[in-house]
Amino acid sequence: MNTTTIPKQEFTDRLLKFQAKIKEAGLDACLVHASESDMANVRYLSEYWPTFEASGVFVPAEGDPVLLVGPESEIYAAHRSVFRNIERMIEYRESAEPECPGMAFKSYKEIVAKYTPGRKLKKLGIVSWSITPLPVYMSIKQQFPDVELIKADSTLLPLRFVKSENELNCMRKAYNISELAIEAILNEIKPGMTELQVIGIAQGEIYKHGGEYEGHSLYCFCGPSTNNAISRPTNNKIIKNEVIQLNIGARVGGYSSSVGIPFSIGPLPKHKKALVEFGLEAHFKTIDMMKAGKPAGDVVKEYEVWVKSCGFEKYMLYGPCHSIGMMEVEQPWMESTSNYELKENMTFQVDTFFYDKDFGLRWENGVVIKNGGVEKLSSKFMKTVEI
Amino acid sequence: MNTTTIPKQEFTDRLLKFQAKIKEAGLDACLVHASESDMANVRYLSEYWPTFEASGVFVPAEGDPVLLVGPESEIYAAHRSVFRNIERMIEYRESAEPECPGMAFKSYKEIVAKYTPGRKLKKLGIVSWSITPLPVYMSIKQQFPDVELIKADSTLLPLRFVKSENELNCMRKAYNISELAIEAILNEIKPGMTELQVIGIAQGEIYKHGGEYEGHSLYCFCGPSTNNAISRPTNNKIIKNEVIQLNIGARVGGYSSSVGIPFSIGPLPKHKKALVEFGLEAHFKTIDMMKAGKPAGDVVKEYEVWVKSCGFEKYMLYGPCHSIGMMEVEQPWMESTSNYELKENMTFQVDTFFYDKDFGLRWENGVVIKNGGVEKLSSKFMKTVEI
Repeated sequence: MNTTTIPKQEFTDRLLKFQAKIKEAGLDACLVHASESDMANVRYLSEYWPTFEASGVFVPAEGDPVLLVGPESEIYAAHRSVFRNIERMIEYRESAEPECPGMAFKSYKEIVAKYTPGRKLKKLGIVSWSITPLPVYMSIKQQFPDVELIKADSTLLPLRFVKSENELNCMRKAYNISELAIEAILNEIKPGMTELQVIGIAQGEIYKHGGEYEGHSLYCFCGPSTNNAISRPTNNKIIKNEVIQLNIGARVGGYSSSVGIPFSIGPLPKHKKALVEFGLEAHFKTIDMMKAGKPAGDVVKEYEVWVKSCGFEKYMLYGPCHSIGMMEVEQPWMESTSNYELKENMTFQVDTFFYDKDFGLRWENGVVIKNGGVEKLSSKFMKTVEI
Repeated sequence: MNTTTIPKQEFTDRLLKFQAKIKEAGLDACLVHASESDMANVRYLSEYWPTFEASGVFVPAEGDPVLLVGPESEIYAAHRSVFRNIERMIEYRESAEPECPGMAFKSYKEIVAKYTPGRKLKKLGIVSWSITPLPVYMSIKQQFPDVELIKADSTLLPLRFVKSENELNCMRKAYNISELAIEAILNEIKPGMTELQVIGIAQGEIYKHGGEYEGHSLYCFCGPSTNNAISRPTNNKIIKNEVIQLNIGARVGGYSSSVGIPFSIGPLPKHKKALVEFGLEAHFKTIDMMKAGKPAGDVVKEYEVWVKSCGFEKYMLYGPCHSIGMMEVEQPWMESTSNYELKENMTFQVDTFFYDKDFGLRWENGVVIKNGGVEKLSSKFMKTVEI
């Protein structure tokens, strides 16, 4: 068996746990949403990953779930999804809003009648609230004016916090591919190449080694734009003696990764080198603070105290970790206000960003929380590189 | 000057035209939305393209517009956007919903007060309605309970229908890169490669030749899954004597392209070859029907009559064209119900899809509407290929 896919039984288990949470929350059903770039919740349940169109999953508190797709995706969904039930709905069409004359679509009323027989819908949970778009919301409001709509991310998202061995295997492979891609870049990069051409090297490597897609929008910047916390690569040319920032991530079996390294061709000016090296120290420091049982907010508070004690707090945006899994950034975030405990097999992206007026740097590597410490998902580029 | 970017003056002109439309529609302002995968309307106005986070543009009927970004994007936006005004808002944070303790955010109330001074907001247009998510909608409803919210895509989208020479140059280059990517695939593909590895070849070529990203989620399928109208490539292996479907598109300066070709390694079974060849004939037929002044619905009706007269209607999903520009699929769609006229410099993707139980094929090329006919944006692979 391919060790970097999620077996069908695991999808069945996920569904049962989710339905238990739906009941626990006093909801009659949940409606989950996915877009092309934010597919995690629907894929977690169904393995389906929309393209061009959006999609949804309707899960009653008891009984069979159904995958909701747009006009063009029915056959694709039947090939890809682990669900037997698939229905076509106009709400999930492309944003170009084709009218699709002559095609038949189901309404939410019909979906609810068919998949929650004999149960009156009173409370409907909305999962993926932050990306659920107006056409979905308006149809539900119009077809169920008396149903209470409740933001219900908390019924599904916590199931994704602690990873299974199958999930970890996907992530291990994804991080390994990211490291291979960075290795290829360091071998091939030359002054005069554009930032985008550098990304092309990574893209080629990701697919060559078995990645299914980028794990996030990849980036390479050189020079002043390294002070962008996030950004997109451009046609700017790679030059010597400047910080070159790489954030490269592959996706495998639905699971993302990212490795971030600031490096240079030729030596850096002293003040830039100093901040790059301090960033790496802060990166190791963060990793040293993490272990099962520790309150997440404590990692952040200790980290911030330490950065302050070193006199570098003015170069800090925020951080220093966020969860990673299907999305490169997913819940739970690690912030000073985080009041949960780190648990074994939670996976975090250690994300160490410092910036000054004219440059910045971001060290990124993945870790799995273990008792007494972490398993590093990537570690090959936890070092300063000057080529 | 780089001929494949949009000059700043063109952004100024777009804004003025948009504001005229806002006034014409009797609106006080419009709020435009963009996500990572559906960035067109915000990028059209501001050149800003969000990553990880979402973004918006608030445009008053009169006065300066403002770009609305999430917690991490302020510096990136300042580097990238043509707007001077940028504001940070919690509604545009990542879907992982960080709390961002200690960071300051603007509210919609503050945005409206600052950017529409002395004007009472009564009617607010929502542009990108189909992707506007609940957090944006809920905040506006809560902060402006008496303001009328109106779907207002028609104030902006029609400005994008007819392309300028700068836009056409981006598209010409994007299609050229797509053809170079297909050429590389045809040179390198071998039985036993996975569909995803084939996509890796295309990704490498896109960036090598100056593309900024894929123009859509690229696909390569081999065998039965070619009957998916849309889909995603997998680890399935490329085999001989089967339909291999490529849909490859580069993006340049914000403008997408796509070239679709079904081909094979070794000869196809006779019935598959026949449908592939009929598809190409239908593809040429569609192109021959297009010219400035023609009602769009007539192209569809004539096409459908012709396909029927050939006895192939049972293999047709729908089509045969949609507009292409910033998004690979954008308005206006070309359907039997379309009642607009084709105008010079509208750009369409001729998209000819036929499918049977166990295979399918999709010929895709781009055209610019001209008087008396079309300019082909791609044409190198309007031919059957057997390697």
